[in-house]
Amino acid sequence: MAVYTEVNDEELERFLERYGIGDLMSFKGIAEGVENTNYMLHTTSGSFILTLYEKRVDTADLPFFLGLMEHLAERGVSCPLPVRDSAGNNLNELCGRTAALITFLEGFCIKRPQPTHCAELGRALARFHLAGNGFPLSRTNALGPPGWPPLFSGFADDADQIAAGLRGEIETEINWLATSWPTGLPEGVIHADLFPDNVFFISDKLSGVIDFYFACNDFLSYDIAICINAWCFEDDYSFNVTKARALLKSYNDGRQLTDEECAALPILARGAALRFLLTRCYDWLNTPAGAIVKPHDPLAYLRRLRFHQRVSSIAEYGYEHS
Amino acid sequence: MAVYTEVNDEELERFLERYGIGDLMSFKGIAEGVENTNYMLHTTSGSFILTLYEKRVDTADLPFFLGLMEHLAERGVSCPLPVRDSAGNNLNELCGRTAALITFLEGFCIKRPQPTHCAELGRALARFHLAGNGFPLSRTNALGPPGWPPLFSGFADDADQIAAGLRGEIETEINWLATSWPTGLPEGVIHADLFPDNVFFISDKLSGVIDFYFACNDFLSYDIAICINAWCFEDDYSFNVTKARALLKSYNDGRQLTDEECAALPILARGAALRFLLTRCYDWLNTPAGAIVKPHDPLAYLRRLRFHQRVSSIAEYGYEHS
Repeated sequence: MAVYTEVNDEELERFLERYGIGDLMSFKGIAEGVENTNYMLHTTSGSFILTLYEKRVDTADLPFFLGLMEHLAERGVSCPLPVRDSAGNNLNELCGRTAALITFLEGFCIKRPQPTHCAELGRALARFHLAGNGFPLSRTNALGPPGWPPLFSGFADDADQIAAGLRGEIETEINWLATSWPTGLPEGVIHADLFPDNVFFISDKLSGVIDFYFACNDFLSYDIAICINAWCFEDDYSFNVTKARALLKSYNDGRQLTDEECAALPILARGAALRFLLTRCYDWLNTPAGAIVKPHDPLAYLRRLRFHQRVSSIAEYGYEHS
Repeated sequence: MAVYTEVNDEELERFLERYGIGDLMSFKGIAEGVENTNYMLHTTSGSFILTLYEKRVDTADLPFFLGLMEHLAERGVSCPLPVRDSAGNNLNELCGRTAALITFLEGFCIKRPQPTHCAELGRALARFHLAGNGFPLSRTNALGPPGWPPLFSGFADDADQIAAGLRGEIETEINWLATSWPTGLPEGVIHADLFPDNVFFISDKLSGVIDFYFACNDFLSYDIAICINAWCFEDDYSFNVTKARALLKSYNDGRQLTDEECAALPILARGAALRFLLTRCYDWLNTPAGAIVKPHDPLAYLRRLRFHQRVSSIAEYGYEHS
């Protein structure tokens, strides 16, 4: 949420010479991105986002993320398109950082999504999954089941500071999921972080999807499970089945869920809730007081996890077999 | 340099209903403004800046600042234009803050201005001063000579922490200026903070002036003195007479300096250097370690002050009487 690297006019104009995007008209550092520095640019040919990847980011993954955005955009998914320079590169260096220039996507995120937004989301997610077909690169989900035990061991000793009994509850869940996690479900490229912050709307129509920096190869239906967690619970933790029904129906209209995916969804939803519980606990315990970015409340995901533990069938998420 | 107040889509769309600026397309918090929160907006009718005035800002002054921008813009000065809502107001409330919507000005500031930029600046400053004529509101310069002693007394005891002997040097200068400050020079509305950060260029042509939050009524030539301090010294503190000559010549082409103004310029330049020395010392001593906004080095203005103390005539600033 800050500009970590200040770019001046001389550095920026020199950088832009490589790209055929017209003359620079204005640039502003924007308060977006926890890990990176982002500038919004106007040139004589349009609006762009310039991202400088700060040192913490593993640049080895950038060709996957940027390549995926290009692959999807070319197949009609509305997302930012990385701009290639005259030599064909979509990554260059600026102010000692790896930097990318991407087209600016109009739209803004919705603070309180309604069922109509969830229906839009389901449609876009199905399109995303279908369009990902044939993308030649792949990336392991570092935050999938094999990643949970090491992530947990990083804060297990302090877990009960967040809530009494939390350590035991997470341990039990990790063990249960290790033996229950499905196999053989349809796989592909997933977004893996499709929260309302990362989906733009204009006048209640979905205008695009951003932030591909968790994208990876995994079960497609795990992405749906993440969306159910991220979009279908109210602030009081109650589950809104109308939203989930809208999401699942429109997804299924775009890409039909298999019987195995339907059967696995409650388990995948538990896994997704656990994954965000784990990272939020970690951030909660490791964010210094007074940091610019306030950590999210982990317990919102403990509540979700407990909800999914009581779900025995996809019908409870509002899904109606067609 | 931060977004202090987070605005969400619902609040913003409700706020914008009052203004006839089309439908909202996107909004981003921008890392600009030390005192205020700023968002950049795209709507179907163009680009805008939304400013939320944080609690520290004295809103009583806002009608002066916004009215001045409107007055100047209507008279051909390139600056952001405050947008009035359907009831004619240019100030409204948003998220518990007083808020204004202004047109977005293309352009960007130049890190290392050259003489050609100083010539552009002089032209624009003269136009600014002439266009300010007839503006019906007025505002005292809180950072003019009567404001210096109270500002100084706020940190005098700690001044020598910044540099040995600084307290005595400032005291002597304040006393000298108190008896030497000119009277009867042409007055009007001045910008009073026309640093390179506040002047935008596109392809080396001045595209506009921003940040009117220090504007006030004072000697017009004091504004020139501020610009000489802000634009005509190099990073090694050396004075670049070529830049000052360009600035003064193009200013004089637009609005001819009187003999009294010419005679007073070295004293005004001392006053301007002292004014920024004082506020920078204050900020230097009162900014907590680790603050987002790093204080500027006060000694840059002590060096300028000492330079001006040795100047006896405007000719030393490169000015040639026509």
